[in-house]
Amino acid sequence: MFKKILVANRGEVALRIMRAARELGVKTVAVYSTADKDTLPVKYADEAVCIGPAPAGKSYLVMSNIIAAAVTTGCEAVHPGYGFLAENADFARACAENDLVFIGPAPECIERMGNKAVARETMAACGVPTVPGSDGVVETVEDARAFAEAVEYPVLIKASAGGGGKGMREVHRPEDLEGAFTAAKAEAAAAFGNDDVYLEKLVLRPRHIEIQVLADDFGNHVALCERDCSIQRRHQKLLEEAPSPALDDELRAAMGEAAVKAVEAVDYRNAGTIEFLLDESGKFYFMEMNTRVQVEHPVTEQITGTDIIKEQLRIASGEPMSCADRAPFSPNGHAIEFRINAEDPENGFRPCPGTITRFDVPGGSGIRVESYINAGSVISPFYDSMVAKLIVWGQDREEALARGRRALEEFKIEGIATTIPFHKRVLDAEIFQKGEARTDFLDVAFGEE
Amino acid sequence: MFKKILVANRGEVALRIMRAARELGVKTVAVYSTADKDTLPVKYADEAVCIGPAPAGKSYLVMSNIIAAAVTTGCEAVHPGYGFLAENADFARACAENDLVFIGPAPECIERMGNKAVARETMAACGVPTVPGSDGVVETVEDARAFAEAVEYPVLIKASAGGGGKGMREVHRPEDLEGAFTAAKAEAAAAFGNDDVYLEKLVLRPRHIEIQVLADDFGNHVALCERDCSIQRRHQKLLEEAPSPALDDELRAAMGEAAVKAVEAVDYRNAGTIEFLLDESGKFYFMEMNTRVQVEHPVTEQITGTDIIKEQLRIASGEPMSCADRAPFSPNGHAIEFRINAEDPENGFRPCPGTITRFDVPGGSGIRVESYINAGSVISPFYDSMVAKLIVWGQDREEALARGRRALEEFKIEGIATTIPFHKRVLDAEIFQKGEARTDFLDVAFGEE
Repeated sequence: MFKKILVANRGEVALRIMRAARELGVKTVAVYSTADKDTLPVKYADEAVCIGPAPAGKSYLVMSNIIAAAVTTGCEAVHPGYGFLAENADFARACAENDLVFIGPAPECIERMGNKAVARETMAACGVPTVPGSDGVVETVEDARAFAEAVEYPVLIKASAGGGGKGMREVHRPEDLEGAFTAAKAEAAAAFGNDDVYLEKLVLRPRHIEIQVLADDFGNHVALCERDCSIQRRHQKLLEEAPSPALDDELRAAMGEAAVKAVEAVDYRNAGTIEFLLDESGKFYFMEMNTRVQVEHPVTEQITGTDIIKEQLRIASGEPMSCADRAPFSPNGHAIEFRINAEDPENGFRPCPGTITRFDVPGGSGIRVESYINAGSVISPFYDSMVAKLIVWGQDREEALARGRRALEEFKIEGIATTIPFHKRVLDAEIFQKGEARTDFLDVAFGEE
Repeated sequence: MFKKILVANRGEVALRIMRAARELGVKTVAVYSTADKDTLPVKYADEAVCIGPAPAGKSYLVMSNIIAAAVTTGCEAVHPGYGFLAENADFARACAENDLVFIGPAPECIERMGNKAVARETMAACGVPTVPGSDGVVETVEDARAFAEAVEYPVLIKASAGGGGKGMREVHRPEDLEGAFTAAKAEAAAAFGNDDVYLEKLVLRPRHIEIQVLADDFGNHVALCERDCSIQRRHQKLLEEAPSPALDDELRAAMGEAAVKAVEAVDYRNAGTIEFLLDESGKFYFMEMNTRVQVEHPVTEQITGTDIIKEQLRIASGEPMSCADRAPFSPNGHAIEFRINAEDPENGFRPCPGTITRFDVPGGSGIRVESYINAGSVISPFYDSMVAKLIVWGQDREEALARGRRALEEFKIEGIATTIPFHKRVLDAEIFQKGEARTDFLDVAFGEE
């Protein structure tokens, strides 16, 4: 196992990684922007190095500063978390060139699976079902129009380097295509420094189902059940649960096998997630692979008893994963994650940076809070608005729902608006209670986009 | 299920019960002493009734006030928690006489098992091994001396109505018997209003192993694995874990069967705990039964996925327990509970009441905090000194130990001294790390009584 690692991230995921490292006896080095200098991960780490000012382009995205911090503090490895440089193959290469282990897959895997168009081809070639899509990157609006006419509207324009809904547009009518194409490219360029986009047939009323996978150097490839992330707003996940109310053992096994086949096909290592769309008839289609840990990984941990971050460290340090002998996994109970964002759900989810004056977390049985906040913390406008993740576990979905309601009532955050009231509304919605939510949930349940 | 219940207790267990009730959709009524009027459970409950001033003898032990509060607020049932009236058969009877369901066993069971001497006879009669003991209550010091000479010193004097180490004395030499006998009776009278004591042969270097049981009206009797509570100071438990490092599947099954046999023999209902001593040769002896929920019940919940308080409510309301079809239970992972007391371990565990100025709980994976405290809370000198329970879960004992250390480091309580530093010392002790601690751990590891 490593003796010391650098955590190339901020916020809750930085603290999450540091806690796992500490439990494994691994020292940690934080990097931080001047805007983040007083945050908990910076205090929690064994050492901390300032890498520049906000925004991220001047600090968390500056590879040379991060590599220098890792080298000068004597780190053996770098954990990228999610976002920022987590799916940047050049960063993984830069780590290797400086004798630092990148805690994630090889740069070739990041490139291959990170480019959504190439990933689709790869999956199709190994027999994993995919949504009908463009043959790689679509360069011009004319090519986009030809594809859309061939597969029939509606279609989805997606950034090749994307994630989190950025650079993504639904197009339902021919007259909207050009504007959407231009907007998607511009947004992709701003978010990822790469304006490549591709097109897919839009699957109507799908569920978003993703399979967590782990692969190590010893030939172990495991699927850690699924997560249902259908509760989204503009392709941003808001609430995730595991297992999915839509999967039975047979479908779970089939999707798990497809996911494992995919990671075997690309000789993948470390943690990754295969995202699928599940249509109303129960057919599933490969959407994309995320070659990093996901925000919503804790729900999988709660139902499988596996610590995914620790497994990442084990795998990257050349050890076998610790959970291989427990595969195939079946879900133990039910877990739900509520993303608590500094956003005002009453005003179009407008971001609400500010100073938190009260931060009382819920307690008791079946409650997990991942955060980096306490009373007095300042939520900066420079970064994403997530301030905490509340994860609840129950023996079954009914208990998880009741516990989620109880915990949301106990969670007291003052000084900023948060998405807590939104989550209470989700729990009140009959369609969610019945386990029937699809990605159009906000529209169907609340009449919101 | 009940619509509304009264919680006849205070502190963390009151909040624990209210949270479970809320998750089941059951309204709660708190009772409180004037000293407790600003505590969290009073705020959390749907209604709250003052029942008198501190100390407990003027409020939490005044049956008529509690019954009146339950009747006037329209409660259907009363949960007694632990301590106070939880093992008082007269209180259970008073509830029944006022058409209130007592959430616990029948008064006859409380009497039979609550009287330690009668309980021993009951157990011996149904073939459960017991420590050689006096034939019921020992009235005089002469009778005590005769017993001690017959079984040979050392012996243990115990309060018949006791628990928590009160009214208990070890006697290793004949010349100490009289003083210990007198002191035990006086302490028993003060603590329980009953100075009856009995004697047992003292088992040297035992482990304290207890089996959690549940029994309902539908003939289900289950054993929810064991807890190892060997880390004690003056017979007060400080740290508990489940499963016990000393038990293998065979011994676990044997002790579980003995416990189930015991509850069947007395036609027991609801939750209970059978406490055993396990000697160095692996033989176990019945010590006593607690006819209520235990402080340390969460470690069992963590390794079995069962909510014991909810099961108590289901059973008392005439429903079957929800977990019967998962028996026999085997432990899922490993859990440890650290009792965080307002005591100064550097000064003989002297109680330290006062105002808490900071209360930052640990977060992240595998952490559970049961408390009733936040920054600004006042720890009253009138009640027991426990301010929180920290429970950690890990996939195995090694992970639980590492997580416990990490969580204790994160737990920041200021304004009072606590037992957090003591628990860190326990985790550092090789004998504990090896899973070899017995009830003499404090002496063996630290040279303390």
